[in-house]
Amino acid sequence: MFSQTDFVHMERALTLAKRGMYTTDPNPRVGCVLVKNGEVIGEGFTQPAGQDHAEVRALKDARSRGHDLRGATAYVTLEPCSHFGRTPPCANALIEAQVERVVAAMEDPNPQVSGRGLAMLRDAGIEVRCGLLANEAHELNIGFVSRMTRGRPWVRMKVAASLDGRTGLPSGVSQWITGEAARADGHAWRARASAILTGIGTVREDDPRMTVRAVDTPRQPQRVLIDSQLDVPPEAQILAGAPTLIFCGNLDERHAERASTLRDRGAEIVQLANAAGKVDLPAMLKVLGERNVNELHVEAGYKLNGSLLREGCVDELLVYLAPSLLGMDSMSMFNLNAPETLEGRLQLNFHAVDRIGDDLRILARFVPRSAPHPEPEAGTEPAPQPTSN
Amino acid sequence: MFSQTDFVHMERALTLAKRGMYTTDPNPRVGCVLVKNGEVIGEGFTQPAGQDHAEVRALKDARSRGHDLRGATAYVTLEPCSHFGRTPPCANALIEAQVERVVAAMEDPNPQVSGRGLAMLRDAGIEVRCGLLANEAHELNIGFVSRMTRGRPWVRMKVAASLDGRTGLPSGVSQWITGEAARADGHAWRARASAILTGIGTVREDDPRMTVRAVDTPRQPQRVLIDSQLDVPPEAQILAGAPTLIFCGNLDERHAERASTLRDRGAEIVQLANAAGKVDLPAMLKVLGERNVNELHVEAGYKLNGSLLREGCVDELLVYLAPSLLGMDSMSMFNLNAPETLEGRLQLNFHAVDRIGDDLRILARFVPRSAPHPEPEAGTEPAPQPTSN
Repeated sequence: MFSQTDFVHMERALTLAKRGMYTTDPNPRVGCVLVKNGEVIGEGFTQPAGQDHAEVRALKDARSRGHDLRGATAYVTLEPCSHFGRTPPCANALIEAQVERVVAAMEDPNPQVSGRGLAMLRDAGIEVRCGLLANEAHELNIGFVSRMTRGRPWVRMKVAASLDGRTGLPSGVSQWITGEAARADGHAWRARASAILTGIGTVREDDPRMTVRAVDTPRQPQRVLIDSQLDVPPEAQILAGAPTLIFCGNLDERHAERASTLRDRGAEIVQLANAAGKVDLPAMLKVLGERNVNELHVEAGYKLNGSLLREGCVDELLVYLAPSLLGMDSMSMFNLNAPETLEGRLQLNFHAVDRIGDDLRILARFVPRSAPHPEPEAGTEPAPQPTSN
Repeated sequence: MFSQTDFVHMERALTLAKRGMYTTDPNPRVGCVLVKNGEVIGEGFTQPAGQDHAEVRALKDARSRGHDLRGATAYVTLEPCSHFGRTPPCANALIEAQVERVVAAMEDPNPQVSGRGLAMLRDAGIEVRCGLLANEAHELNIGFVSRMTRGRPWVRMKVAASLDGRTGLPSGVSQWITGEAARADGHAWRARASAILTGIGTVREDDPRMTVRAVDTPRQPQRVLIDSQLDVPPEAQILAGAPTLIFCGNLDERHAERASTLRDRGAEIVQLANAAGKVDLPAMLKVLGERNVNELHVEAGYKLNGSLLREGCVDELLVYLAPSLLGMDSMSMFNLNAPETLEGRLQLNFHAVDRIGDDLRILARFVPRSAPHPEPEAGTEPAPQPTSN
């Protein structure tokens, strides 16, 4: 069904798509290669939102080089869109160009429109094939797929730890456990995310900016802070620059002034309390999904990390493991209690393992559970309670 | 200095050497390839102690196939021996065979004899080259090199842990955190060791046999038990079969009967107390070195692991990391306390990282310290004391 030539061109389209890694958000990263008589005549990838999609970009590229598109094959890493959004549908553009064949890596993950773009092309007499390098295309837009199919972002939790699983000295000192290469790599993962999440504990401890600095990007992710009682100091660095989104829990009158001060600092405050008065984390993911967050990058302390894990809010762990030992009284990665039996432990799969400088980078994905995680007993501060898994 | 052909033949010699991985102990694993006119005419690797070394084996192989060795090149992964041990010197055998050239991967690590074998060959008019694939040859005999140069074994500490660095539930349950493939792989590392070390805590908890079962080997490593007060039950599985070597600390009269019972069970007891009355671990390594232990494989609990680490008795960690989380109240890998500053942490290098089944296998080596580790404050039970590093 797919020739070796098809593979080569789709690989190229995936490479192009990756060029939009930091910029297409909230749109998916898509690449397109146009081939005629065995020659690549046009290439493109998705431009920042509101500008050209990959297919239109590639068509313009081919035309600017004087090519006639009739009879060409279009390789696209995602099904061409069929609807008018901020730009006209790409399926129309391919039909008007009279391409002969379209090879797509995967269908649009949005169940509302999935397959419609391909159907439009077929109806116009174009030969359509779908599924070439689908896994690779899916990985590239894992956050977009998550938002379209689950209505919530793909949540990636980053942790830097020693080989004995500790994230900082008992004093909290953690700068730096991993090396410079790992820290720069961490910024690349921040850069590809729609939003970066942290908690009030980390703000108090480290006063981080939570911006992308170690890699070059024209777009900064939305910063999100979990702060049940609006305890963030107005002078905290996380509030400087672009508006930060703060999720809080139940508030009373004494919080009104705090909220007002924070709004003056540009922050947006969303109240979203669970039964315990803390931030309802699964509901927060829904809100972030509605706000077009594809990939949510979490860099928080062990308490918020533990809460997110217990409430089933994490899809994968991005662990940087340093070749050192910090000792058993140093800080743990997650505020999680032991299960009663080994069968009850949280299970993952190692998705990718790489060396980054002197450190290891481990990407591990949670194995979905058959049963949902029970609600925590005390919101985001569950240290004394046993976990129920 | 070395041709591509030299590399090919030395690679083959290393492959042959590995066939003796479980059997040459306490001799080094050595491989030999004999080449004449571009043709491999003989191959051999070290046989069990007292039998043929690699060179003699290869010479016999070539002769049995009717070859004349005159003018041949011998590739050996270690400098041919120059002394009469349980077998005559291999250098003599190569001289008598009138080979033309000898290529060795590395010199004999024993400073007393290093270079003598090569000198004998040169004196006999043979062209000698040394240093081809020396790193690979060194890795193969890392324990032999350690014993020859430091008078103590190469100590490899095996740990199986979850991604959050825990080795068992709070109850002690740890069977099994890692998968079957990782456990079989662990037995292969046991099989190549001269001796396997554990502590009384592990015997009490798990009653392990500490034998090699998951891989096929004709030789079982010497079992070594650290048991300060001779608390091992006479019916413990570690005492069954071949004699186990027990190191103990200060004893008094009430231990006489225990010692007698254990000797009746075949155990050998060595008293080696430090100032605290516990087993003097560095001195124990010296004793094991004198007893021809090349590689010492440690599988112990977090207490003995911590003592060995604090006393600078560990050369590398063999960590099997499972894709699961056990929680922060589960068991830690090492009874080590945090250093005062990050600069004081124990540093390693990741030497090799591989996937074994669903788990990761990490081989990490300690970065030697400029200063020796201070003595621990309370021997093998230091939980309440801060470490001094």
